[in-house]
Amino acid sequence: MIDLHFAPTPNGWKVSIMLEECELPYTVVPVNITRGDQFKPEFGSLNLNRRIPVIVDRDPPEGGDPLAIAESGAILLYLAEKTLRFVPCDLRGRHCMLQWLMWQMSALGPMLGQNGHFSLYAPTRIPYAIERYRSEARRLYGVLDDRLGETGSYVAGDDYSIADIACFPWVMTHKAQGFTLDEFVHVRRWYAELRARPLLQKGLEVGRRAVRKTLDDRAREHLFGTRPVAADRPVEASETQRLDN
Amino acid sequence: MIDLHFAPTPNGWKVSIMLEECELPYTVVPVNITRGDQFKPEFGSLNLNRRIPVIVDRDPPEGGDPLAIAESGAILLYLAEKTLRFVPCDLRGRHCMLQWLMWQMSALGPMLGQNGHFSLYAPTRIPYAIERYRSEARRLYGVLDDRLGETGSYVAGDDYSIADIACFPWVMTHKAQGFTLDEFVHVRRWYAELRARPLLQKGLEVGRRAVRKTLDDRAREHLFGTRPVAADRPVEASETQRLDN
Repeated sequence: MIDLHFAPTPNGWKVSIMLEECELPYTVVPVNITRGDQFKPEFGSLNLNRRIPVIVDRDPPEGGDPLAIAESGAILLYLAEKTLRFVPCDLRGRHCMLQWLMWQMSALGPMLGQNGHFSLYAPTRIPYAIERYRSEARRLYGVLDDRLGETGSYVAGDDYSIADIACFPWVMTHKAQGFTLDEFVHVRRWYAELRARPLLQKGLEVGRRAVRKTLDDRAREHLFGTRPVAADRPVEASETQRLDN
Repeated sequence: MIDLHFAPTPNGWKVSIMLEECELPYTVVPVNITRGDQFKPEFGSLNLNRRIPVIVDRDPPEGGDPLAIAESGAILLYLAEKTLRFVPCDLRGRHCMLQWLMWQMSALGPMLGQNGHFSLYAPTRIPYAIERYRSEARRLYGVLDDRLGETGSYVAGDDYSIADIACFPWVMTHKAQGFTLDEFVHVRRWYAELRARPLLQKGLEVGRRAVRKTLDDRAREHLFGTRPVAADRPVEASETQRLDN
C-alpha cells in the first residue's frame, strides 16, 4: 500500500493521476497547505523541503522499511519503474522521455507557477514581472506545441508516458492563467485526448472538493511566505484554479 | 565521442564537470547565448527549448544514430547510466538521489535563477520580487544545509553523486547572489570539499575565459526576452557571476 501525502495542486495531481493510471492501491493523506500542515514536524520528517506531494511506499520492491519519496518528478519515475508502466523500455526512448520530464520539472512547472503568482496572487500589480512570466509561459506553451506537432502523438513519442502525466495538470491551469489553447493546436489536440482518459479523470477527482476558491490572509501567509519558513513555490500557485477548464 | 553544446552558466558547468569526473572524451561546441546562437536553426534541431546544455553522443550504448539529449538533469542521468558512475546502484539509494536531483532541477536552480534576475539583471529595482526570491533562495539554502547535516557527507547520502554535481555550480553563485555560506555550515563544509576535487575544477575551467563581465543591450535582448522568442530562464542568470567565489 502507498500513502499519498496530497494537496489539490498540479504537482499533487500528477501523482494521483499516475497512481490511478497504474491501478495501484493507495491512501490519500490530506495536507492542508493553506493551514500550514506542511510545517508540522511529522511532514518535515517525510520531506525536508516541506512540499507536497510525498509518497510512502509500505511495500517497496527491494523490501525493508517503508520508503518515502518527495518531488513529483522523482515519484513518477519511481512508480513507473515499480510498475514498468508509462516509461519506454529502450534506452533512446527512455532518455528522450527523461529529457521532457526534466523540462516539465525545471521549466513548465516553475515558470507557470511564477506566472500564476504574479498574475493572480501577488498583492500588487507588478507589470515587469507579469510580462516576464507571461512571455516565458507563452514561449513554453509554444515549445510544447512544437514538440507535440513533431511527435504527432505524445510528449515523449508514440506512447503515453509520465512526461505527459507531468505536463497535463499544469496545462490544465491555462484558463486561470489567462491562456487559450486555440493558438496551440497540437497542445489542444493532446489535451483533449488526455482529458478523456477515465483513469486520469479519476486521479483529478482526488481532493477536488478540498479546493478553496479564495485565500484568506492566513492562507497567503502559509503559501507565499511572510513566515520565516516561507512557502512560495509554484506548487501552490493554482490553489484557486478552476477545475472546469 | 560526445559533443557538448555549452555556455559558461551553472547548467553548462554541471555537464562539463560530469564529463571530466567520468573521464569521458568530449568536444566543446560553444554556444554564445549573449549573441543569440541558441536561436539559430541548427541549435533548434538539437533542442526545441533552445537552452544549453545539450550533448550529442556519437557512440550511444545501444548503437545507431548520434543521440542528442537536452536538459542538464537528463544529461547527468544519461551519463551516469552510460558510465555507471555517480549513481547509487540500489533501488533505495537511486530513488533518494533522483529526489534530490529533481529538487535541484525544480527548485534550487529555477529559484536561484529568479533571485539572480531580480537582484542583478532586472532593469528596475522591484522590492517585492527581490524579497520574494531572496527569501525563497535562503529557504532553499537552509533545506540543502539540513540535508547535508542529515547525511554528514553528500546530498544523496554517503557517496558523491550527480545530485552533488547538479547543486554545486548553483551554490557557486552564492556571493554574486548576495549570500555567504557562513550561516550554512554543512553547505560550507560540502562546498569546500567539492571545490577541492581536481576533475571538478577541470570541468569549471571549460568556458571560463568566455564569461563576459557585462551585458550590453543586445545581450540582454537575447537573454531576457525582449524578442518574440524570449529567453529569460535561470540558465543564464549567473552570466556575469564571479568565478572566484
